[in-house]
Amino acid sequence: MGPHPAVAAIRLAVRRVLHDILTEYFSGTSEPSPHDSERTAPGRPASPLVLVACSGGADSMALASALAFEAPKLGMRAGGITVDHGLQAGSDVRAEEVALRMRELGLEPVESITVRVGRDGGPEAAARDARYAALDAAAKRHSAVAVLLGHTRDDQAETVLLGLARGSGIRSLSGMAAVSGADGRYRRPFLQLDRQTARKACMVQSLPVWDDPHNADPAYTRSRLRHEGLPALEKALGKGVVEALARTAQLSRDDADALDTWASQAEASVRDAAGLLECAKLYALPPAVRRRILRRAAIEAGAPAGSLFARHIEEVDRLITGWRGQGAINLPGKVVAQRQGGRLVIRQG
Amino acid sequence: MGPHPAVAAIRLAVRRVLHDILTEYFSGTSEPSPHDSERTAPGRPASPLVLVACSGGADSMALASALAFEAPKLGMRAGGITVDHGLQAGSDVRAEEVALRMRELGLEPVESITVRVGRDGGPEAAARDARYAALDAAAKRHSAVAVLLGHTRDDQAETVLLGLARGSGIRSLSGMAAVSGADGRYRRPFLQLDRQTARKACMVQSLPVWDDPHNADPAYTRSRLRHEGLPALEKALGKGVVEALARTAQLSRDDADALDTWASQAEASVRDAAGLLECAKLYALPPAVRRRILRRAAIEAGAPAGSLFARHIEEVDRLITGWRGQGAINLPGKVVAQRQGGRLVIRQG
Repeated sequence: MGPHPAVAAIRLAVRRVLHDILTEYFSGTSEPSPHDSERTAPGRPASPLVLVACSGGADSMALASALAFEAPKLGMRAGGITVDHGLQAGSDVRAEEVALRMRELGLEPVESITVRVGRDGGPEAAARDARYAALDAAAKRHSAVAVLLGHTRDDQAETVLLGLARGSGIRSLSGMAAVSGADGRYRRPFLQLDRQTARKACMVQSLPVWDDPHNADPAYTRSRLRHEGLPALEKALGKGVVEALARTAQLSRDDADALDTWASQAEASVRDAAGLLECAKLYALPPAVRRRILRRAAIEAGAPAGSLFARHIEEVDRLITGWRGQGAINLPGKVVAQRQGGRLVIRQG
Repeated sequence: MGPHPAVAAIRLAVRRVLHDILTEYFSGTSEPSPHDSERTAPGRPASPLVLVACSGGADSMALASALAFEAPKLGMRAGGITVDHGLQAGSDVRAEEVALRMRELGLEPVESITVRVGRDGGPEAAARDARYAALDAAAKRHSAVAVLLGHTRDDQAETVLLGLARGSGIRSLSGMAAVSGADGRYRRPFLQLDRQTARKACMVQSLPVWDDPHNADPAYTRSRLRHEGLPALEKALGKGVVEALARTAQLSRDDADALDTWASQAEASVRDAAGLLECAKLYALPPAVRRRILRRAAIEAGAPAGSLFARHIEEVDRLITGWRGQGAINLPGKVVAQRQGGRLVIRQG
């Protein structure tokens, strides 16, 4: 008798990602074999280490259990990191418990790391920044080839809705990438798996899980979305909403990548000998490509990407498409855009 | 003293659209003047007719009132059409009332048209099809240059969410176009205006409005979205959601248009002398462009666009990106896709 379907599903998802990691690690070999030391690049261990980032919640506990099961079968080592954000009383004890559970699963090395959460960008962003800094450092310290993250399809759906609320275009609809970070360090094996499956897999494996009270705290946007926004959308639109949002993320990401490629290729062709943007040539481009070039130029001139909104770019675009002699346009970061003699000049004022 | 801000807002929105229509009507003249008959194309009336489609609801009553006010100032004629779908008892009396109100606003000609609603595609789609067929016929009968529709920014936000629920990519996120139909016949002046402003404009002008009970009927997806889904999303994400969704529509539309252009240009370059798609050349394209070419090829071969989902195209795409000798893939409309000797053959089986 095989494992419970939920356990089979989480293991398959992890196995696929580990296989990708191995293929890249032994790059050039079409059939990677970690035991074949001659094929290993010089100075690289024959048995690479993969870490899992584990909060003790159902998603990441399921991920830790699947990693512990699958890694040895592929000749890989599996370790775990838990981050204590120090935001709740007793969070240090909690972190030690999670570390203990990971050791019980057979993960090695296991580390519990305490971080200091700042205030930049709000509580959610500050905690995330501190967490990723700790994971980055741990990955380097242990020479890990990858860090697995437990984000599920439900998390992805929430992220797409959060991006939708910004109204800043398809890049912000593309959610989380399956592969991200420096050298593709972060991997999200569960991005196509639903939260319910992860929870079920923990239950049938008798893995105790911890429900972070933050996840149910209506002070957090994501929590409101999870417990009120998404259920209401599902009630109105039907049960397939989460899957549709996750698919939208993937399609939007591919579309945004293609348009970025186009914009970076087109950019060279619309600059004159002095490197200035020629308005007539910009005018001839599709609006979607032209606005991406304008955005890139503004960022290059010093405008902070996070403060540059669609309406800023639209206003600059009107210097091209609706020219009536309007004056200079002020952009964030003291960047100024103006039209001079058929050229668009964007620079820090 | 000028008009109430809500009335000023609806009139400005209509004035802009009428100006666009005039500019196109007297195309070639940079400053259109309907009174300058020498500039009118031969056989065209110097005073073109614009119709408004009016249900008697707040949005389209506000639109009718603004059209009646603005059209004469631009030397245009303004008429109105109301469509009786015959789906509720007394709908004929209701339609006559709406026609009477339009006449009171000074619109001429005014027509009440009774349609027979079929069953194809569900009740909402069937009513829409019947309505647009009637409006198309009325526009031709009266030689109208345009038909104005009262869709607001709130309708647009709902349409984006309905598209999101399909999960079929950015084209379905692009909502309703400001200009659509044959020769750009349909115009939506209120697409950037909120529903509340239209309602307010009716109130201060003492225009009686009719609230269609369908709009509050939870049997309709759009009604559930309006009364439950969107409010819950606003509660979770903040008041800017409707505006963000409307902006997403515009950005997605431009992006989808640009990618369609790219795909149609790239398509010629990936076909061999016999017109077959070359897998190696398809492989070299960005996934977003390649999948659009595959979709176009499937539709060209006879697959009905409405039944062709992202997962179908993904499966065909794997013949290019994940070739392991897999067999023919069945698509809707009895279309079959298969790889043969480095070529992709898509045809009706």
